[in-house]
Amino acid sequence: MRAPLLTLLMTTAALLGAAAAQPAAAQFAKPEDAIKYRQAAFTVMGRHFGLVAAMAAGKIPFDAKAAAENAEIATMMSKLPYAAFVPGSDLGDTKAKPKIWDEMDKFKAAATKMQGEMAKLNAAARSGNLDAIKAAVGATGKSCKACHDNYREE
Amino acid sequence: MRAPLLTLLMTTAALLGAAAAQPAAAQFAKPEDAIKYRQAAFTVMGRHFGLVAAMAAGKIPFDAKAAAENAEIATMMSKLPYAAFVPGSDLGDTKAKPKIWDEMDKFKAAATKMQGEMAKLNAAARSGNLDAIKAAVGATGKSCKACHDNYREE
Repeated sequence: MRAPLLTLLMTTAALLGAAAAQPAAAQFAKPEDAIKYRQAAFTVMGRHFGLVAAMAAGKIPFDAKAAAENAEIATMMSKLPYAAFVPGSDLGDTKAKPKIWDEMDKFKAAATKMQGEMAKLNAAARSGNLDAIKAAVGATGKSCKACHDNYREE
Repeated sequence: MRAPLLTLLMTTAALLGAAAAQPAAAQFAKPEDAIKYRQAAFTVMGRHFGLVAAMAAGKIPFDAKAAAENAEIATMMSKLPYAAFVPGSDLGDTKAKPKIWDEMDKFKAAATKMQGEMAKLNAAARSGNLDAIKAAVGATGKSCKACHDNYREE
């Protein structure tokens, strides 16, 4: 157990270090590229968060290693979509409400809240404590829902 | 607090479906979920690899920190899509050629080759050496193209 745990922690530290910094200046050739990219990042985040949530709900067997891996991926993904809400990408094949661009600071604050909750879930998953994971899944899910309710068309 | 949490967990569980006996990595409620997920993972990988490649090609300014961050993300993403080439996901809105499922070992070997090249690019990007990054971008791009040529419809 010790060596894989150490590897995991080192990997985690490396990934967190990379993810903590801002990505390169958002460069998208076309608004639709930004839309496709941010939707893709949410899709990947949703899947990996969803797997941890399903474990927390007892819908799939709890596997501490898989929970930690999935939370790690979800945490990295949580950093990615927001640089892609660029000017002009309110139009197109997107469910993003136009008011995002009218209140970008509030939107980014809601994103930051979600990223913080996801980081806590990541820490909980690394600890392997299922009760802590359950609590963090609930808080993270709430932060997802808050943004969806405010900023995403159904 | 309790009701939203339960709602979230139940929704998540419903989305994930009833595949409780399978390993976590292989659970998709529907083949189209697997298709959407793997396409999303490729989209995110492609963007971050593309940013490093653009720096290597001199199309955008070289920024060692940004190159390292993007290569790190691309490397994590490179590991994700292949668990989603599940049985039944050859049909649907996908460019994946059916022969993938006929020669899964060869397909997975090509994936492993790409993952190895991407890991080398990640190491090169961490070193900050632009010549090493250029070489690794070339090798990684070749491994992407090999798989596209063999296994993806135009």
